[in-house]
Amino acid sequence: MKIGILTSGGDCPGLNAVIRGAVRKGVRLFGDEFVGIRDGWRGLLEGDLHPLTTHDVRGISGRGGTILGTSRTHPYSGGGPDAMRQVMKDNGIDGVIAIGGEGTLAGAARLADDEGLPVVGVPKTIDNDLGSTDYTFGFDTAAAIATRSIDALRTTAESHHRCMVVEVMGRHVGWIALHAGMAAGAQAILLPEFPVTMERVVEWVESARDRGRAPIVVVAEGFVPVGVDAEEGVAAIAADGRPRFGGIGDYVAAEVERMTGIETRATILGHLQRGGVPTAYDRVLATRLGLAAVDLIHDASWGYMTSLSGTDIIRVPMADAVESLKAVPKERWDELEALLG
Amino acid sequence: MKIGILTSGGDCPGLNAVIRGAVRKGVRLFGDEFVGIRDGWRGLLEGDLHPLTTHDVRGISGRGGTILGTSRTHPYSGGGPDAMRQVMKDNGIDGVIAIGGEGTLAGAARLADDEGLPVVGVPKTIDNDLGSTDYTFGFDTAAAIATRSIDALRTTAESHHRCMVVEVMGRHVGWIALHAGMAAGAQAILLPEFPVTMERVVEWVESARDRGRAPIVVVAEGFVPVGVDAEEGVAAIAADGRPRFGGIGDYVAAEVERMTGIETRATILGHLQRGGVPTAYDRVLATRLGLAAVDLIHDASWGYMTSLSGTDIIRVPMADAVESLKAVPKERWDELEALLG
Amino acid sequence: MKIGILTSGGDCPGLNAVIRGAVRKGVRLFGDEFVGIRDGWRGLLEGDLHPLTTHDVRGISGRGGTILGTSRTHPYSGGGPDAMRQVMKDNGIDGVIAIGGEGTLAGAARLADDEGLPVVGVPKTIDNDLGSTDYTFGFDTAAAIATRSIDALRTTAESHHRCMVVEVMGRHVGWIALHAGMAAGAQAILLPEFPVTMERVVEWVESARDRGRAPIVVVAEGFVPVGVDAEEGVAAIAADGRPRFGGIGDYVAAEVERMTGIETRATILGHLQRGGVPTAYDRVLATRLGLAAVDLIHDASWGYMTSLSGTDIIRVPMADAVESLKAVPKERWDELEALLG
Amino acid sequence: MKIGILTSGGDCPGLNAVIRGAVRKGVRLFGDEFVGIRDGWRGLLEGDLHPLTTHDVRGISGRGGTILGTSRTHPYSGGGPDAMRQVMKDNGIDGVIAIGGEGTLAGAARLADDEGLPVVGVPKTIDNDLGSTDYTFGFDTAAAIATRSIDALRTTAESHHRCMVVEVMGRHVGWIALHAGMAAGAQAILLPEFPVTMERVVEWVESARDRGRAPIVVVAEGFVPVGVDAEEGVAAIAADGRPRFGGIGDYVAAEVERMTGIETRATILGHLQRGGVPTAYDRVLATRLGLAAVDLIHDASWGYMTSLSGTDIIRVPMADAVESLKAVPKERWDELEALLG
Repeated sequence: MKIGILTSGGDCPGLNAVIRGAVRKGVRLFGDEFVGIRDGWRGLLEGDLHPLTTHDVRGISGRGGTILGTSRTHPYSGGGPDAMRQVMKDNGIDGVIAIGGEGTLAGAARLADDEGLPVVGVPKTIDNDLGSTDYTFGFDTAAAIATRSIDALRTTAESHHRCMVVEVMGRHVGWIALHAGMAAGAQAILLPEFPVTMERVVEWVESARDRGRAPIVVVAEGFVPVGVDAEEGVAAIAADGRPRFGGIGDYVAAEVERMTGIETRATILGHLQRGGVPTAYDRVLATRLGLAAVDLIHDASWGYMTSLSGTDIIRVPMADAVESLKAVPKERWDELEALLG
Repeated sequence: MKIGILTSGGDCPGLNAVIRGAVRKGVRLFGDEFVGIRDGWRGLLEGDLHPLTTHDVRGISGRGGTILGTSRTHPYSGGGPDAMRQVMKDNGIDGVIAIGGEGTLAGAARLADDEGLPVVGVPKTIDNDLGSTDYTFGFDTAAAIATRSIDALRTTAESHHRCMVVEVMGRHVGWIALHAGMAAGAQAILLPEFPVTMERVVEWVESARDRGRAPIVVVAEGFVPVGVDAEEGVAAIAADGRPRFGGIGDYVAAEVERMTGIETRATILGHLQRGGVPTAYDRVLATRLGLAAVDLIHDASWGYMTSLSGTDIIRVPMADAVESLKAVPKERWDELEALLG
Repeated sequence: MKIGILTSGGDCPGLNAVIRGAVRKGVRLFGDEFVGIRDGWRGLLEGDLHPLTTHDVRGISGRGGTILGTSRTHPYSGGGPDAMRQVMKDNGIDGVIAIGGEGTLAGAARLADDEGLPVVGVPKTIDNDLGSTDYTFGFDTAAAIATRSIDALRTTAESHHRCMVVEVMGRHVGWIALHAGMAAGAQAILLPEFPVTMERVVEWVESARDRGRAPIVVVAEGFVPVGVDAEEGVAAIAADGRPRFGGIGDYVAAEVERMTGIETRATILGHLQRGGVPTAYDRVLATRLGLAAVDLIHDASWGYMTSLSGTDIIRVPMADAVESLKAVPKERWDELEALLG
Repeated sequence: MKIGILTSGGDCPGLNAVIRGAVRKGVRLFGDEFVGIRDGWRGLLEGDLHPLTTHDVRGISGRGGTILGTSRTHPYSGGGPDAMRQVMKDNGIDGVIAIGGEGTLAGAARLADDEGLPVVGVPKTIDNDLGSTDYTFGFDTAAAIATRSIDALRTTAESHHRCMVVEVMGRHVGWIALHAGMAAGAQAILLPEFPVTMERVVEWVESARDRGRAPIVVVAEGFVPVGVDAEEGVAAIAADGRPRFGGIGDYVAAEVERMTGIETRATILGHLQRGGVPTAYDRVLATRLGLAAVDLIHDASWGYMTSLSGTDIIRVPMADAVESLKAVPKERWDELEALLG
């Protein structure tokens, strides 16, 4: 068969391992031919394609980013499904593997389920917010980078008797904050799913300080303190003259310093969390998902994606996976209780 | 309650995170008192104990090794269960958390099930060979170290057009070889569970060489080639004068070089795989297992251990977990097929 | 002799290795006794001291931060030199090793040269801006962290066809930007010492983009583009509604995006550059400087500091070292020419 | 001009940064054309050449190994200087940059000085044993890898109350052992230049053990204990049945265990020290040496190499650099005294 492959949405450590796994398996076990689709849906809409051989994918499983490029182009933009159908017909493409997050998979589900296009999916999200899969690759790497960063910030915090606020990714869910905060032994971990007041944050910070520790606060970018209008909060701070003010990390740092008198600094990890060499965990998961995606194509399981369940790779409908965001459950928050403060 | 805690068997990245999780939760949620037991069962047999406070465990979740020390002392050595009972009575210890691998947990199961001692377990093994749990902490760190090492060896292999053989841990099971080999894109992965002939190894090596790659062979220490008596193989090589000869890694390297003419070097990772900073994954898993172990104690779930199932921490009988080694299953070996050679 | 030791100013990877080196040598070779002075000059002004034994310094050479704590307290604040003299007399301190940067050493020089206090110095600065020494410890670690961060950002930049701006430390000098930018192969490197126009920056960025590369711009925090009033620039941007605006990194990113149309993101490394495990290079340099500092004390070389010259550790007057900032020289800028764009 | 470039001898982190620096500068500043010579002198003897453009060298400064390949082919093998002269003439090569260690540079010096071939050099050696330059690239990366490895081994050593022996590179000189041992705080550091008896080693080990530490012994592969015939020592051990016996690391570990009763393990770092990502320090040094090598060509400074002196890149005759091995000087050994035991 002739198989197209694309990566769409934000880049994520492990994308290249998926691509390599799929191409190696397709070529060697089934004699498939592969076509690289440039920059996500854009390439499929515009027919921006190139042959993808086992030579092209050699040695890439440990490289961050994606050799195919990515974009946030929507599949219903431009010529939409009809244009894609034509491009696939013109190029003899029998099926497409779409690697992406919630948006990409929602689009892929519609293309398969509503438009009858031969599309399967591989789930990808650094935020780990996709349903129907235990974990997604990219998350472990992001949590690892955040953990090491907090480890590093702790020594400087302790030398200066400071509080450090570290803002990590997570607009809607707090998985990275939860795992990195737990791994690095943070004294306060602030998740979008479980808003607390700044007074509660200050309690944790002061409890740590009183025991002689430099308090570490990990905050997901989507956290909003109880009782605070995020936009108003921002404006208030900007007005009092602090020049650098961006995300919630800066807000929390300014408030902690104001409320406690403890010198407090914010660090925004930002793009550092996406970059660089994927962890062994993510490479293995991504490789296995890519290997299994080829079976989806050969089984004509359009509308399905590969997924992790325990230690097994299974297949699930993409439509189910994108139905709702996978938030941090209450049990995981309760589990944290003994570790904060 | 007054809770004793011990680490036994080979050390493992994540042990300290278990200890910290347990102590923090016991002290803060239940008002427990903790006792550190030195060097595994030896400390419990001999009453070598010390108070263990939240102060003692602060900042240790990211540190390798174990602050309690460890040994391979057998629980039925010395005074055995009676001595332990007396030590526990003398020191008012209501329950013991034993953190260890197959041997430790088998001992703990007997102590709880046969002798009626109040013992619970936390599973630990770098080799990932324990049943009744999806993964054990330490394994992810070991696989990560092995992966990075192979990444590093690849550049030197390619510059010199050499074959590199990397021996990783795994006397009975090949989990580390499987994961590190897959993550690093090795061309041959040799597992104790799926012995192959040296001729098969050579096919993989030559296929990679013919494509212009420097072949990487990852071999678990317990692998024995089909048709080779391991001991005889060793003797033969030593006789022909190669001075450094130790494990299967050296044997495979010598045979590959002899059979293919490709310059081949062996690297034995050995203790490097146990050492250093645990990965974020292992710290989170270990912390959660430690938190849950305190509940086992308070529920008097003697003979049980905490365990990972999917994304949940559950409790299972230790006796079940140690019934048989968790080997790499046939499906995982088949999955590899497209990646070798 | 009884020797006091203090760390002052911003913390810096390697401080603990200096302390360990000095204490080990003093105790073992000369039978000295050591006193830890808490939080820089503050501890000496207030008599906040504690005994410092070889036991206290064991295993610390690889740990970031400083076990003595640090502060920015000025030596002429509080009771000033007289208070220090009294504290030294009361505690029998024969000499003080002051480890710090330009400000600390300038203070130490005055204390020794003008006030006759028995003070010697060890130079420390992440920024590498001290004269009279080839390098200072901390700089190599900061440059290493910045280099690895740029490596990581490159993969995400390339996947998204973006330009990445990375702001590194360096208010007055561009050493970190120069070394990290050169090591990571940045296409534009912006130093305080060699201001260029934004038009020049855009030329480099577009030249890289036209060759198919994701342009990387490394900017030292003290860089100001030619023709731009830094304060006005900031205000202009803030007015047009971008919420996160802090340093020059944000400004450069906004301007590059505006002038080229290339999607551009900024990352501010900030405190991450100070933190964590010192490099082997910094540990060796710091240890050697600490060992040599004890000789300064025993030789009563008050007003002198230890220093690196080629591969040798020498002694130089602190007053000379702080006379002027060590800027990146013109030859190093010229050397860069072939690498930019 | 048309410039050939080759890498010869053992591979070394930083080689690619030299190549990139030279090609970028030659092409952009002088309009030079570059030719890659495959596998060291072999490529020049056999005319195994390929064009080398700025496109070929992009993004390689952070990659280990050498994109040109390397070999240990001697320049006076095969057709020797006459064959090279012919290849250079046939391909219009005006000058050759030879990047290599002692052997390569000695060959290059003869080719330039005795045969009149237009050859210049760039010094490379992981061992740091070349004269006429303060440091060579590759050494910092090797010392960094060894240091991190020792850091990792320490935690496992401490958990098991073991002694760890770590064998690092250095057949003739002990620079890596010296720097890694000092950086990681080893209790015994064994250098080829300063042989000591096993009794002295045992004193250091026991002194550390008596203070409650897990003793770490770092030994350069070329170290031979005083009073021991290396070959005889090896044979004796092999006879008593220890299967793995290779280098001096195994010997020292066996002897320490025998003489002290302390459980002792050896780790041989081997090829791990050559591999992987060069440090920022090595990338900067290598880049600067590569940039300067182009000037040597344009100045027709045949027989000269680029070199590091303090913070400057200078030029020196290759013949001088290879006159004698740069051993660890007595002052550096004396400096260690306070740190051992």
